[in-house]
Amino acid sequence: MKALHFDGQLSMQQAATPCPASGEALIRIILAGICGTDRQILEGYSGFRGILGHEFVGKVVKCDAAQWVGKRVVGEINITCGSCPFCRRGLRRHCANRSVVGIINHPGAFAEFLTLPAANLHEVPARIPDEAAVFTEPLAAACEILEQVPQLARVRAAVLGAGRLGLLVAQVLRHAGAQVMLIGRSAPKLNLARSWDLKAVTADSPELRPRSFQLVVEATSSPAGLETALRLVEPRGTVVMKSTFHQPAHFDTAKLVVDEITLLGSRCGNFQTALTLLETGAVQVTPLISKVFPLEQGREAFEYLKDPACLKVLLAMQ
Amino acid sequence: MKALHFDGQLSMQQAATPCPASGEALIRIILAGICGTDRQILEGYSGFRGILGHEFVGKVVKCDAAQWVGKRVVGEINITCGSCPFCRRGLRRHCANRSVVGIINHPGAFAEFLTLPAANLHEVPARIPDEAAVFTEPLAAACEILEQVPQLARVRAAVLGAGRLGLLVAQVLRHAGAQVMLIGRSAPKLNLARSWDLKAVTADSPELRPRSFQLVVEATSSPAGLETALRLVEPRGTVVMKSTFHQPAHFDTAKLVVDEITLLGSRCGNFQTALTLLETGAVQVTPLISKVFPLEQGREAFEYLKDPACLKVLLAMQ
Repeated sequence: MKALHFDGQLSMQQAATPCPASGEALIRIILAGICGTDRQILEGYSGFRGILGHEFVGKVVKCDAAQWVGKRVVGEINITCGSCPFCRRGLRRHCANRSVVGIINHPGAFAEFLTLPAANLHEVPARIPDEAAVFTEPLAAACEILEQVPQLARVRAAVLGAGRLGLLVAQVLRHAGAQVMLIGRSAPKLNLARSWDLKAVTADSPELRPRSFQLVVEATSSPAGLETALRLVEPRGTVVMKSTFHQPAHFDTAKLVVDEITLLGSRCGNFQTALTLLETGAVQVTPLISKVFPLEQGREAFEYLKDPACLKVLLAMQ
Repeated sequence: MKALHFDGQLSMQQAATPCPASGEALIRIILAGICGTDRQILEGYSGFRGILGHEFVGKVVKCDAAQWVGKRVVGEINITCGSCPFCRRGLRRHCANRSVVGIINHPGAFAEFLTLPAANLHEVPARIPDEAAVFTEPLAAACEILEQVPQLARVRAAVLGAGRLGLLVAQVLRHAGAQVMLIGRSAPKLNLARSWDLKAVTADSPELRPRSFQLVVEATSSPAGLETALRLVEPRGTVVMKSTFHQPAHFDTAKLVVDEITLLGSRCGNFQTALTLLETGAVQVTPLISKVFPLEQGREAFEYLKDPACLKVLLAMQ
């Protein structure tokens, strides 16, 4: 099968079609999305070598649990042992022995086929088109904030970064009842948010008073975002960090201590919550698609993503 | 009156004895403690200029609320407006208009006299000697963790830093039922902790497995402590930052995000909780006293504190 492979360099390669083990499904990938984490991996994050990609929608072509065969699915990316202390406590996404699709020790979705434990699969409701279903994984990551900060009604929330993730987070928070201000640099991206009736401003807006937000979500993919988040959050407020990047961040810890800020790391989230938001149309995702490339042009797709105006780039396998 | 003054340089000066306004008490200081924050102020933290010092025990010599006169007291250091949004929400220690004794816009306790609103005062129970009462403010800061992390029974907790603050925090957490490991460098300080039946080890101990503590308290007063805390805390665990320092810290945000760590800034705490711990003898404080200097030798006291073997240095006013 064709696959987009990273071994320090990104290249299209012919790879053996994977063979599903007992309990696993073989999935023919339909669409896959390129994520900021994929770009960070190219810069050294996680040390991963192999087939990249962890956002996908596909169809099960083989599985010993016959009810899955033929189903259109998305898949959770953490492949867990089920027996370590974290799995036993229900924190499977923090499994001590996990592999992670396209990030840690498991081939990714930028290929024609992928194997995944059937336990990781979620059937995609018929109302959700492929082009929306492929956003399930990043939308679930945005929804993780709902579990970490359960009281969002009328909360004054700022979302830093009007990129792929920020535009999802802003919609999710607004749907949960928060008063959301999206902060970005790119006029087209801010205008897209405004077209959904979100408040969206640039960082120099006079509406951004220091210490005025109860919740700030850092989704800039830049180490400098944390300093801005700490400037905007009010005493005893919460900053959620969503970006992962390879470089260390530095920040004024005195501000964190004196204002008793809570800084929450936030990663993967609940797929069913995301699928419900997609099925009901509560969150817009397809306007984020900047371009769809065929898998064979995977390297060009990564190049295209460097354009700051770009939002989501998809790879189509068929 | 005599006072230890900082204006870029530390010097003993003659200052006017302050005159209490309506609602304020004039306190004759008995003992005052030098805190890590005082040393940070000398290095530029907070930009404070004036009489230093915020840990004290004293006696009220003048107050229009007559019941306070003659009482032995300790005092909360945040002088608040009572009317800003934070005060109205009960978060008086985060008052937007506050001054802070010896730190922001209010003369400190390294002097013969201090004025403070009577509302800030707590009478010291007779069973607590002056040498213990002077620890109320830093012990209250250690107790703030009890309010931020309410479930401590059987929690695996590491305290980073066996200095003044770490030795208080370790005792407070143990008293709340946590399984505490104190981590420090100095053999005498670790031995002091062991004499209280606390587990105390150096950072190279094989008992310090990465990702093995549910709670890590960073009390090293060093920007590097945060990296160590993030190494020791388990996924979904909590790191409490107590140290304030003038330099920025840098840290691996990917670890915070991927392991979904909660990082809590933690500052001042409840004085009554601290006084109860002192009165019942649940926490040992007087063994932390390295030396008591007369106020006149305040500069020598600050010099003495530079010795890494030193714990608490007190200034005696009389």
